[in-house]
Amino acid sequence: MAEKELVLLDGHLSEYSYVGGYLPTQADFALFKSGRVPSNLPYSLPSVRRWAAHMASFSASELEALPQLKDGCKIDEQLSNLVQNNLKMEKKEAPKNAGEQKKAQNSKGKSGKFVLKTPKGTRDYNPSEMAVRRKVFNTIYSVFHMHGAVEIETPVFELKEVLTGKYGEDSKLIYDLEDQGGEILSLRYDLTVPFARYVAMNKITNIKRYHVARVYRRDNPAMTRGRYREFYQCDFDIAGQYEAMLPDAECVQLVHQVLSKLNLGEFTIKINHRKILDGVFGACGVPADKFRPICSAVDKLDKSPWEEVRKEMVEEKGLDPNVADTIGEYVKLSGKEELIEKLKNDERLKDSAAAQAGFADLELLFQYCRALGCDAYLVFDMGLARGLDYYTGVIYEAILKAGQEGGEEGTVGSVAGGGRYDQLVGMFDPKKKTVPCVGVSFGIERLFAIQERKDKSQTDKIRATQTEVLVASACKGMLIERLKLLGVLHGAGIKAESSYKNNPKLLNQLQYAEDNGIPLVVLIGESEVQEGVVKVRDTTSREESTIKRDELPDTIKQRLSVNP
Amino acid sequence: MAEKELVLLDGHLSEYSYVGGYLPTQADFALFKSGRVPSNLPYSLPSVRRWAAHMASFSASELEALPQLKDGCKIDEQLSNLVQNNLKMEKKEAPKNAGEQKKAQNSKGKSGKFVLKTPKGTRDYNPSEMAVRRKVFNTIYSVFHMHGAVEIETPVFELKEVLTGKYGEDSKLIYDLEDQGGEILSLRYDLTVPFARYVAMNKITNIKRYHVARVYRRDNPAMTRGRYREFYQCDFDIAGQYEAMLPDAECVQLVHQVLSKLNLGEFTIKINHRKILDGVFGACGVPADKFRPICSAVDKLDKSPWEEVRKEMVEEKGLDPNVADTIGEYVKLSGKEELIEKLKNDERLKDSAAAQAGFADLELLFQYCRALGCDAYLVFDMGLARGLDYYTGVIYEAILKAGQEGGEEGTVGSVAGGGRYDQLVGMFDPKKKTVPCVGVSFGIERLFAIQERKDKSQTDKIRATQTEVLVASACKGMLIERLKLLGVLHGAGIKAESSYKNNPKLLNQLQYAEDNGIPLVVLIGESEVQEGVVKVRDTTSREESTIKRDELPDTIKQRLSVNP
Repeated sequence: MAEKELVLLDGHLSEYSYVGGYLPTQADFALFKSGRVPSNLPYSLPSVRRWAAHMASFSASELEALPQLKDGCKIDEQLSNLVQNNLKMEKKEAPKNAGEQKKAQNSKGKSGKFVLKTPKGTRDYNPSEMAVRRKVFNTIYSVFHMHGAVEIETPVFELKEVLTGKYGEDSKLIYDLEDQGGEILSLRYDLTVPFARYVAMNKITNIKRYHVARVYRRDNPAMTRGRYREFYQCDFDIAGQYEAMLPDAECVQLVHQVLSKLNLGEFTIKINHRKILDGVFGACGVPADKFRPICSAVDKLDKSPWEEVRKEMVEEKGLDPNVADTIGEYVKLSGKEELIEKLKNDERLKDSAAAQAGFADLELLFQYCRALGCDAYLVFDMGLARGLDYYTGVIYEAILKAGQEGGEEGTVGSVAGGGRYDQLVGMFDPKKKTVPCVGVSFGIERLFAIQERKDKSQTDKIRATQTEVLVASACKGMLIERLKLLGVLHGAGIKAESSYKNNPKLLNQLQYAEDNGIPLVVLIGESEVQEGVVKVRDTTSREESTIKRDELPDTIKQRLSVNP
Repeated sequence: MAEKELVLLDGHLSEYSYVGGYLPTQADFALFKSGRVPSNLPYSLPSVRRWAAHMASFSASELEALPQLKDGCKIDEQLSNLVQNNLKMEKKEAPKNAGEQKKAQNSKGKSGKFVLKTPKGTRDYNPSEMAVRRKVFNTIYSVFHMHGAVEIETPVFELKEVLTGKYGEDSKLIYDLEDQGGEILSLRYDLTVPFARYVAMNKITNIKRYHVARVYRRDNPAMTRGRYREFYQCDFDIAGQYEAMLPDAECVQLVHQVLSKLNLGEFTIKINHRKILDGVFGACGVPADKFRPICSAVDKLDKSPWEEVRKEMVEEKGLDPNVADTIGEYVKLSGKEELIEKLKNDERLKDSAAAQAGFADLELLFQYCRALGCDAYLVFDMGLARGLDYYTGVIYEAILKAGQEGGEEGTVGSVAGGGRYDQLVGMFDPKKKTVPCVGVSFGIERLFAIQERKDKSQTDKIRATQTEVLVASACKGMLIERLKLLGVLHGAGIKAESSYKNNPKLLNQLQYAEDNGIPLVVLIGESEVQEGVVKVRDTTSREESTIKRDELPDTIKQRLSVNP
């Protein structure tokens, strides 16, 4: 491709993501494989460079699955059109801004066809989905409040530097904002790092806080399995220097309470301890610099069988096969306090200070959880590792056995996880002064999905509205009278609606009340207005009674309190 | 500056926002005014170009107010250091990624000093601030529910194209995300455009929804006056083809109800109509292509005196001075229905179809608002114009007279605004099929600020926690007993806390209950445990009574229900 064409392509791609607009098509694939775009692109063509690097990131099967460009894959004509369009525009006055340029191209219908969608990996939530969310949120909030937690809120973005170096290799999934001549910002990746920044910045020595908000990860979305690029986290954390294992036990209790209250099925709370894992690795002969990589291999045990994890340890991470096999003996173990007792005296572990410190913590944790009444579903699982680098002590994860419905969606899944991270706050303090922390994060999207399935299988639906009364009329010309009644009911704090039509049909109004689960209908006609009365109709029983207009708010309140 | 130096500066500025790191300093000012950075920078130096354009956006007083670079303003040395640092690094292996490069520079402590802060124009909210927010939100939610509104949620970012061309000249304030090889995304600027996108995308013909969420504007923040780059909007909108002015009247009623319930002071709801404004402009002789610019000048009447607005019309927008003076006569008018009556027969307006249609709408609106009981604070204000382009009919704005406290912060302020926008949904529909909409948005940050001041001036504080019971011990060795009581209380749904210390002092525990407004203390010592009883202490009256342990949850619930 001539340099001039490349410059024009760069101009096009600075405006659009792809050759054909905002979605990749076979046109991109054809151009990419044609070899007409050189691989050693200069920095002066940033948009072509970006596009070429992006095309190279597609797998062969992904490239083949791309949709056709509309009107077939006429890549040469597409580019020549592009060239001509650009030349034409250059001859005229240069467009003032990007918006105008786009409009100019759009009006020609050549490229950049408008696609009405939400960004990749995101979705809207409709009213009935929101009603399910509110229900789940309110249950979780009620438990947070039961523990005397306070709420904080932090910005959706942070200085990029705040997030740098906190997430290991996942850092590549962070969303950056465009540098528009100011600070370099990134969308938050979780709520834990902003919390640690908040604690350090405000020199807080102790706080028990919750924070419910969305976080952002440029992961490959698997939306059918509830994995999004924008999703809620629901975090509860305790920061402060306290008696060992007391805040940790409170976090386990909280998970137990939330899952019991949500009543979504049986669950297990797995616990382990980073010091025990380190002790095992040391005792088995893992070199110290391989502790974290081997730990991250163990973390995959919940998704992959031991054989695959072993392969990763030996082939990818260069671990001695015998050492891997010894680790395999340990990470398969799970049990209750008797397993701690047994391992304390294990030949390999009895001299490991790290492992023994971990066992002492877990013994305390079991003891406190028993006193709190939340030990029934607690399991010490040596195979639990948790991915994030910043954990330093107890780690835990709650698994929901939502198996009743059967099928793929009914399989076991992790719905909450957390642990102790005693060094993270110190990373933000100028003098490296830290505040020990422990916390838990609920994976809300999965809980929503399970709650939604459960609600659908039940007869009484969750309502998206809370309306208590529909003000209806039996004849024409009642609009102003209906509005007056609305004013009276609202004034008394009663949730009431009325039709936006001037003369709605009575049957339609009654049907609306039934469809939307509105329990009471206040009904007026000419005679009711003249006599100063209204009819009150029970939507379920269809019984009607006539009451005086003055008595309306009190009567409604009484009816609602009896049968809310 | 030599080209080589500029290239190195570009490298530095691609990593850092400013010469000295992430904050602008006098070093930037000095370099900028030195003339050493040429004004005709090539595209191959994008970061220097960005920096230079950004520096040019500072006002003289802002530049002078910039802080000193640490160790004084040694701009030449700074740049030579930069050159040397970069040369040194080039000799070594090139750093693999931005993070590593940053680390390498940070460790030398030369530049990019880590600053612990939230991004410009944003802030954290601490627990007591969050408690105020929750109180305001809950009031607003209760009114939304009173009207049978449903809730939706949309992603925090949209395809850039969705936002393009919707906000006029404010588009430059939109936050863009970095194009990391995918779609081009921008953070939402308001909730109205995403709502219209949602309605069009889901082919919804009618919905009454609310949406409370944060929006993003790269405005010059004025944080002391409650103006941020990240702030909440609280939107209520009605979409659908309905009887004229019924949904509009409901929006006015809702504003009336929210402000009455919040009880933050006297308020006025100003209304006007875009068709009336257009009618006035037409009748006064404004050319059709100047309607929107002149409308946007009128919009400034709430902040500037008429003389300045007139100046903008005449000098900036080239309006005939006589035409401006005639407009001035109209936009000063305000009143109630009698003003509509008078203007309907106005010599200039009686033949304007647009103005007459607007008057007919406002007459209906007044009539419906009177029936709904929300006309008391309604004022027809010909000077109300509202900034946004998309309004097509009735517009309104609520002004709170929070004047009791006096001083600058006590002045009148707009706390809600909205109007009818019948064409916005059609902009997203492939066939341009539209859905008429009307809505209102509450400016929550200002309401928070006023509520916060009000709360501070009152004696009974808002609590950041909801804890009802503190479980305390009068002697050592009671930790497990305290945990058991916590388990029992939580099991009964009672909000209870206990100290994280093994052996906390009794006085400290009682003081904690008083400081945090926890109404009841459950107290145990050795004798209580032996006898199977607990003491219940009322924090306010300090009265104590002894009850059987079995009766604990019921007694507590009863005590709380009597004196919550």
